[in-house]
Amino acid sequence: MLRLLSVNFGGLIEHRTLLSLKFSTSSVMAKSKFEYVRNFELDDTCLRNCYIVVRLDGRNFHKFSDQHNFIKPNDDRALGLMSRSARSVMEELEDITIAYGQSDEFSFVFKRSTTWFKRRASKLMTHVASQFSSSFVFYWKEYFGEQPLLYPPSFDGRVVLYPSNRNLRDYLSWRQADCHINNLYNTTFWTLVQKGGLTTTQAEERLSGTQAADKNEILFSEFSINYNNESPLHKKGTTLIWEKVTETTTKQIKRPDDEETQVTVTRTRKKVTSHSCDIIGDQFWEEHADILESDQC
Amino acid sequence: MLRLLSVNFGGLIEHRTLLSLKFSTSSVMAKSKFEYVRNFELDDTCLRNCYIVVRLDGRNFHKFSDQHNFIKPNDDRALGLMSRSARSVMEELEDITIAYGQSDEFSFVFKRSTTWFKRRASKLMTHVASQFSSSFVFYWKEYFGEQPLLYPPSFDGRVVLYPSNRNLRDYLSWRQADCHINNLYNTTFWTLVQKGGLTTTQAEERLSGTQAADKNEILFSEFSINYNNESPLHKKGTTLIWEKVTETTTKQIKRPDDEETQVTVTRTRKKVTSHSCDIIGDQFWEEHADILESDQC
Amino acid sequence: MLRLLSVNFGGLIEHRTLLSLKFSTSSVMAKSKFEYVRNFELDDTCLRNCYIVVRLDGRNFHKFSDQHNFIKPNDDRALGLMSRSARSVMEELEDITIAYGQSDEFSFVFKRSTTWFKRRASKLMTHVASQFSSSFVFYWKEYFGEQPLLYPPSFDGRVVLYPSNRNLRDYLSWRQADCHINNLYNTTFWTLVQKGGLTTTQAEERLSGTQAADKNEILFSEFSINYNNESPLHKKGTTLIWEKVTETTTKQIKRPDDEETQVTVTRTRKKVTSHSCDIIGDQFWEEHADILESDQC
Amino acid sequence: MLRLLSVNFGGLIEHRTLLSLKFSTSSVMAKSKFEYVRNFELDDTCLRNCYIVVRLDGRNFHKFSDQHNFIKPNDDRALGLMSRSARSVMEELEDITIAYGQSDEFSFVFKRSTTWFKRRASKLMTHVASQFSSSFVFYWKEYFGEQPLLYPPSFDGRVVLYPSNRNLRDYLSWRQADCHINNLYNTTFWTLVQKGGLTTTQAEERLSGTQAADKNEILFSEFSINYNNESPLHKKGTTLIWEKVTETTTKQIKRPDDEETQVTVTRTRKKVTSHSCDIIGDQFWEEHADILESDQC
Repeated sequence: MLRLLSVNFGGLIEHRTLLSLKFSTSSVMAKSKFEYVRNFELDDTCLRNCYIVVRLDGRNFHKFSDQHNFIKPNDDRALGLMSRSARSVMEELEDITIAYGQSDEFSFVFKRSTTWFKRRASKLMTHVASQFSSSFVFYWKEYFGEQPLLYPPSFDGRVVLYPSNRNLRDYLSWRQADCHINNLYNTTFWTLVQKGGLTTTQAEERLSGTQAADKNEILFSEFSINYNNESPLHKKGTTLIWEKVTETTTKQIKRPDDEETQVTVTRTRKKVTSHSCDIIGDQFWEEHADILESDQC
Repeated sequence: MLRLLSVNFGGLIEHRTLLSLKFSTSSVMAKSKFEYVRNFELDDTCLRNCYIVVRLDGRNFHKFSDQHNFIKPNDDRALGLMSRSARSVMEELEDITIAYGQSDEFSFVFKRSTTWFKRRASKLMTHVASQFSSSFVFYWKEYFGEQPLLYPPSFDGRVVLYPSNRNLRDYLSWRQADCHINNLYNTTFWTLVQKGGLTTTQAEERLSGTQAADKNEILFSEFSINYNNESPLHKKGTTLIWEKVTETTTKQIKRPDDEETQVTVTRTRKKVTSHSCDIIGDQFWEEHADILESDQC
Repeated sequence: MLRLLSVNFGGLIEHRTLLSLKFSTSSVMAKSKFEYVRNFELDDTCLRNCYIVVRLDGRNFHKFSDQHNFIKPNDDRALGLMSRSARSVMEELEDITIAYGQSDEFSFVFKRSTTWFKRRASKLMTHVASQFSSSFVFYWKEYFGEQPLLYPPSFDGRVVLYPSNRNLRDYLSWRQADCHINNLYNTTFWTLVQKGGLTTTQAEERLSGTQAADKNEILFSEFSINYNNESPLHKKGTTLIWEKVTETTTKQIKRPDDEETQVTVTRTRKKVTSHSCDIIGDQFWEEHADILESDQC
Repeated sequence: MLRLLSVNFGGLIEHRTLLSLKFSTSSVMAKSKFEYVRNFELDDTCLRNCYIVVRLDGRNFHKFSDQHNFIKPNDDRALGLMSRSARSVMEELEDITIAYGQSDEFSFVFKRSTTWFKRRASKLMTHVASQFSSSFVFYWKEYFGEQPLLYPPSFDGRVVLYPSNRNLRDYLSWRQADCHINNLYNTTFWTLVQKGGLTTTQAEERLSGTQAADKNEILFSEFSINYNNESPLHKKGTTLIWEKVTETTTKQIKRPDDEETQVTVTRTRKKVTSHSCDIIGDQFWEEHADILESDQC
């Protein structure tokens, strides 16, 4: 697997006649003859001073969730595994300052000023897609235990640039509003099926044309469920950010007089933390003011 | 994980005062307010009538191979796993007509006329990167047995377009010439270290400035190794293509008169096959004339 | 207008206090402080081994032709000026091997292997648009005589890449078929108006839903016009190519014995020539085999 | 020049045998057969919420200025013509809010939120290049009088996006700092030649390695020229913006009682105005606060 790029090839040399030598020489020449194909690669550098968002979406996850018996409407093992994989991406690519996920999608936001991969779109999105996907399989067992993963799943990705803080926040708001809308629908749909005894077709018909208010009403009046009390994880999705955490550990130290003493060590380090809170309003952004870079730059 | 995209939102409706209702309504409106961010996504459709090549490269595989004790200069388990993962990609994306891999890289060639993902570069390369990476972890055990995978590896990718058959063949020739050059170097380097007792620094110095011919000479005269007899897999890398294979199976059938008979069933189907042969010359392409589409189109 | 790019700026120096000096120094520093904005320019190199087509279209030429009293359906002065401007573009950018124009549009084809402007799309298309537009005004008088140009007209442009000879020929065929269709319509339309006494609205209604055959029929049976005998320039548009032409001139030379002799000098040079012939069929391309480069490259 | 795009082609129809009819029918079919080439055009939409800057640069203007005897170091006729052409561009494309020019270059800034040409980069830059170039020839006589324009000049262009007000201002500052640096050099250079009697080579040597301060010093101590008193147009270039201007005209009106009265009419309209002031500092931007759109959007 060792790659050697700086190998040097020069002029012809004297050598004993050996079949392989001839072959090799022509092959070296062939390489330089072929090398022109490098120039067909086009540049895809992302515009500077813009947030770079990479969003991944699960491919055929409807089928995947069926085949792996995901719990409806939300499977906490799957959501946990998605977040764990996203954390793995953030730990590999430190210039991601915030990531937001819901359902089978996850968005990763690179800071405005990142120079990671020289801001090449293709490298950024494939690296994220790759790290996420290998992590998803790698950590499967931590979330699904003995239930086997039947086949390797895949995700597709895209890159979108946002020039201002407002645009970026609106992007994340859009995804969180999407989470809310889908979760309200799915919660009502599966309550009608699981508790109300409707078939999926009947539930679909029942919900056809309804507003958010209608769904809240169905949940509340027919099933005594107050949607507001549902799990924040399901209503708000998962937001991952970097935070300074203070960790305190105790160590046994041997002093010069050979006596052992317990010492408390306090260390501050940056860590990816997970939140299921509103990111549409201002509060979250005021509390984590370091995520956004100034528009004045 | 259920995604519902066709949900319909309409006008305001009468409803009992309930906190959550207000919230939901504003959230729906918020969604449409935020939806403008969709328009920041730029189109990255690949030019028509060009071969689309996606190449993946292992990230930090030098370190990865050290930590997983890869055999030098070539680890057949790792090479097998790379090919297995590549096959998984080809089986998912049927418009890939040929793939070529060596060391920690793999190139996938979509046919000229593919309309997969509407030829969107980002989708094509992230899907390939994702499927390859999840497969790499998924199939690890088949190749490394009980040796554990220590962490999820990652690959980055890129897209390059080639307008003509000549360009595409030259691209593949370039990668195969690269395989040859690296393998000759690595074979000689590790022979000097493993059999010749040199340190890696000494081996590096010994090979500095040498030609292909010199390395063949070192192998032949000092270690009686004829490079030509080395493994084709190591010298030529791995080429994956689709081939029609005929499979014969025998079945027990119960006839009307209740007697059992053995019947031979012959079925022809397309299958990904693996080759370690020269793809620089014409022979391979003449034997597999269906891989390339005509330049006359 | 002198541009000096190699000016060198260095460290601070001792100097007498002079207001302007302070200003200048800060300005120099300002320049380097601002220079980062260069990096926002994105690369737009055209894929190699593809024909680069730049097509220009007149902006608001309906109005322009009305205001300048263009003859309907075809104004030969305007068509002549278009061709003259296109020739001016070809003479400036020698890598354009063929240009095709009709109505208020002109397409310029750069050879597959051109490295003009490093194949940067923006430079290629703006240069063509600029040269064409300045030429249009510059040569106006040659075609319109004393009739004044009322205001500077403009053209917009685009770049399209074609990977194969077939694609390029189909592009040019598409434009020529478009010329034919429009000219047949316009010829019939204006004949109905000018010779048939219909209003433009009546002529429009009369032609609504008609096929090419119907229009030929109207021209033939009602006005005894055989469309096939119409001007090739109007039916086929204008094709410009480079051709070797032999020019013979006679010179008076004084011989050593002081006697004057007339000498015939024959010189071969490349020149832009204009054709109004079919470029859809094979004949034109067989006769001018040097326009296309091989697909085998 | 009439373009007819909505022409309708349908099924085959009965018709008398007429040579041209066959031809036309096949030609119509040919058109639809060829139309696939449209799909080779790639999208080049500019990222939203960014300023779109189109910069034009004169091609071979060193030679052009020599051949047209431009006055050194600054030819006010040429600078006037450049500004006149730029104004013509702004009047055609109203979404350009500011333009800045110096020497043989001009930059045009489209507002952040423009939807002109659906933000297609190719259309924006070719239109600007075309309108500027045709105007340059069209208005030549207004600035150069009887001195003839020898050939049609050309300009090339590019598009650059700037996501923030700071970036845009830094871009314009960069161009104005460039103007200053070049003008100081050129003023000193031509003073040494024209008043100091140096050859151009000697002047070049004299200035080699000098700082801004040295040049100011040369002008002041050797030629009693205070650079600060030089023309603002030469030191600062030309800035064009839209401003509301109030115009007062007097009209003769006939009243019902047949008596004539003079009436004063005051009209406010937007007009392109020209400035040669500093645009690096804040003052200009505070005085013209409507040029920039908020970063908070």
